[in-house]
Amino acid sequence: MEHFLDLDDIPNIDQLINEAINLKKAPYAFEQLGKHKTIGLLFFNSSLRTRLSTQKAAQNLGMKTMVLNVSSDSWGLEFEDGAVMNTNKAEHVREAAAVISQYVDIMAIRAFPTLCDKEKDEQEQVLKSFQKYASVPILNMESATGHPLQALADAITITELKQKQKPKVVLSWAPHPKALPHAVPNSFAKMMQRLDVDFVITHPKGYELNPEVTKDIPITYDQEKALKDADFVYVKNWSSYKNYGEVESIDEKWMMNSAKLGNAKFMHCLPVRRNVIVTDEVLNSNQSVVIEQANNRTYAAQVVLKNILESL
Amino acid sequence: MEHFLDLDDIPNIDQLINEAINLKKAPYAFEQLGKHKTIGLLFFNSSLRTRLSTQKAAQNLGMKTMVLNVSSDSWGLEFEDGAVMNTNKAEHVREAAAVISQYVDIMAIRAFPTLCDKEKDEQEQVLKSFQKYASVPILNMESATGHPLQALADAITITELKQKQKPKVVLSWAPHPKALPHAVPNSFAKMMQRLDVDFVITHPKGYELNPEVTKDIPITYDQEKALKDADFVYVKNWSSYKNYGEVESIDEKWMMNSAKLGNAKFMHCLPVRRNVIVTDEVLNSNQSVVIEQANNRTYAAQVVLKNILESL
Amino acid sequence: MEHFLDLDDIPNIDQLINEAINLKKAPYAFEQLGKHKTIGLLFFNSSLRTRLSTQKAAQNLGMKTMVLNVSSDSWGLEFEDGAVMNTNKAEHVREAAAVISQYVDIMAIRAFPTLCDKEKDEQEQVLKSFQKYASVPILNMESATGHPLQALADAITITELKQKQKPKVVLSWAPHPKALPHAVPNSFAKMMQRLDVDFVITHPKGYELNPEVTKDIPITYDQEKALKDADFVYVKNWSSYKNYGEVESIDEKWMMNSAKLGNAKFMHCLPVRRNVIVTDEVLNSNQSVVIEQANNRTYAAQVVLKNILESL
Repeated sequence: MEHFLDLDDIPNIDQLINEAINLKKAPYAFEQLGKHKTIGLLFFNSSLRTRLSTQKAAQNLGMKTMVLNVSSDSWGLEFEDGAVMNTNKAEHVREAAAVISQYVDIMAIRAFPTLCDKEKDEQEQVLKSFQKYASVPILNMESATGHPLQALADAITITELKQKQKPKVVLSWAPHPKALPHAVPNSFAKMMQRLDVDFVITHPKGYELNPEVTKDIPITYDQEKALKDADFVYVKNWSSYKNYGEVESIDEKWMMNSAKLGNAKFMHCLPVRRNVIVTDEVLNSNQSVVIEQANNRTYAAQVVLKNILESL
Repeated sequence: MEHFLDLDDIPNIDQLINEAINLKKAPYAFEQLGKHKTIGLLFFNSSLRTRLSTQKAAQNLGMKTMVLNVSSDSWGLEFEDGAVMNTNKAEHVREAAAVISQYVDIMAIRAFPTLCDKEKDEQEQVLKSFQKYASVPILNMESATGHPLQALADAITITELKQKQKPKVVLSWAPHPKALPHAVPNSFAKMMQRLDVDFVITHPKGYELNPEVTKDIPITYDQEKALKDADFVYVKNWSSYKNYGEVESIDEKWMMNSAKLGNAKFMHCLPVRRNVIVTDEVLNSNQSVVIEQANNRTYAAQVVLKNILESL
Repeated sequence: MEHFLDLDDIPNIDQLINEAINLKKAPYAFEQLGKHKTIGLLFFNSSLRTRLSTQKAAQNLGMKTMVLNVSSDSWGLEFEDGAVMNTNKAEHVREAAAVISQYVDIMAIRAFPTLCDKEKDEQEQVLKSFQKYASVPILNMESATGHPLQALADAITITELKQKQKPKVVLSWAPHPKALPHAVPNSFAKMMQRLDVDFVITHPKGYELNPEVTKDIPITYDQEKALKDADFVYVKNWSSYKNYGEVESIDEKWMMNSAKLGNAKFMHCLPVRRNVIVTDEVLNSNQSVVIEQANNRTYAAQVVLKNILESL
């Protein structure tokens, strides 16, 4: 694996999931692999799970870690080609990416979307600029349009917990007070298209995701119908894609609860707003697998780092 | 030792102090103990000594360290049960504590009091919430009402430096421009009740500490009388406990100086405001042991981590 | 090497450069040297290259690293002797330096100048205060008046790339929207006085550097004349030294471009403002060696740390 920018960088998803499950059983089995290797974690945004699980994954493989909170630790970065840099941005990504490449063996980047400039977000300006100018592999720790490490952790979780060969998986929109990115639902939808699952998306009218992502996934505005006989229900808010970054409605009826959930497992990428996205009752029940999803973030990151290290 | 939340978690104080003094002589004697173990340090507040000495202690034991500045690196945390989370707090401590438990083997937490809400502070809402929802041992790096690692370092310092079997120790209030917590004086007072010392507290009227902490410790408003024949004088500001969090007075007469100190050793947990809490003359003299107290923070943390690791 | 505060701490510059070039070929050759040794990196200001390259250098030598963003992680520091500390500064450097010395084996400090108070800046109040009160070696990661690690990296770069025994090196001032420190040009000018180079400085009238630094280095206001037959051109902005910290002019004519550069190598310490300091054309060409300069920051730091460790 050369880079891990998107799920397309995974050639064989079933094999990678099995490899991750094996790493979970023996986390230190490859701790010689990362000897004298360093990962640099660059954060343009807040992070809890990603920050800690990626460090943990790297350390399990024997790597050194260096964390950079780009905005507060370092310099404002310019991403436009040809810019006359007389504003508050002191360094261009061309130099930053090339320079950091010399201090680390793998560069991990978290950069959320603007949710204002659809074109820039869809071009993945930050992630792709680093990829373009770096000379080391890039690991996507959530970008403008995707969160592939989360989707990989979700796939591991479903694989571990499924009770039938082809479970029914539902992605159900939920209300939220703020405008949120599409990265998690995008990557989850893409991942479900690669697993042997019966997958459906449900959301209020106006919350259609990018059709290039959802392709021919069944979409319904009828949450009740979508949830029928579900085995896994992934609940997540996202803002409008059409009216880019807008909060169209915060209809509380879409909040998940025990009655709607039935016997399904409840999934969420976290952080989750209790009693807005989902009731306490669901989160506190045995049906919630959110903590296990977060646990699998370590092994998702570790299996990806292992594959990148093996290709160096 | 399962957790280290309070001094009550120390079954045998003399034994722990001796073990710490032995670690100080041979800091790397147990560096195999922490192999493949990680400590996560969560800071809700500023820290210099605690931040560095706890990392150092963990590294001396062969542990990996991960530091999280909760507010700036991560998400605003909700601590109320049943909250409808539609404000600026994106994650509940129930999830945060359970998730982080999967990335670390020991979780260390610094969370100062509100100094506004006495009930929440006395309930140790932050620390106890993490303990409740975490599945790994919790290390208190200063909480709303206690700073047991500081008190342990103080006890090590007194044990190392005392010239007589039962020294006289005085805790003397000092003026300060801001309202400060009770954590340090609380833990010091509790610790002194467990050592073989002659202990007295002196402060202006109105600055009585929580009587459940001070119990039958002699308290006097007469600083001169308290300081007579003292061997160790611990000087510290704290705000009013009765008029919770209020600054009742900042009477400069209570500042410590060489004349008042006599031949006693001067102690303070640091940071210390020079010429407000104590004169330059005292701090620059050989009677000041504040630097040695800070040095012992490493071995206080290390002995506690060692005991927790041994119980895993 | 006891401390590394300034270039004067290097007894034999050619020997150190050669040692650095050897470390670059075998970065892990001395990884036993730093065993059980810790470096503390204290940042009062932003940093990218210094932050990462110094950590990397320390890790290459087997050291542990601890990073402290002084202002945000810790307490406001007081540097004045005799201060009555009733303002917003909670800790004096006397305590901070002495305390941190107990947790680390080497203390690295970045502290930019005020650019307001020439006297304090020239006294190197922050760096020298830490040196005065610390009990461990101090590493200058850029101070008010000098950036010796950068100059050492620059000297390594020139030594590696020079095509003739005594190359012509030009330091050429460039426009910039903000007032910048003199640390980089000062250290570069000092370093060039110690290398076997033909060195000249060019800048607009009013931008004379401290004459105690430039001594008898030829200075000309005629950029074209200075650049004639240059082998290396180091471009850098600095604010006025005479009208201390003032931006006298931002004459765009002084921006470097390909025509002016001729066949010389282009050097800059980074971060660099594209199309303000220098054109894209130059930076994107093979004549730019700024990325290699940044790469050599690792080996500059590593050779200095190696020499300090060997003297412990």
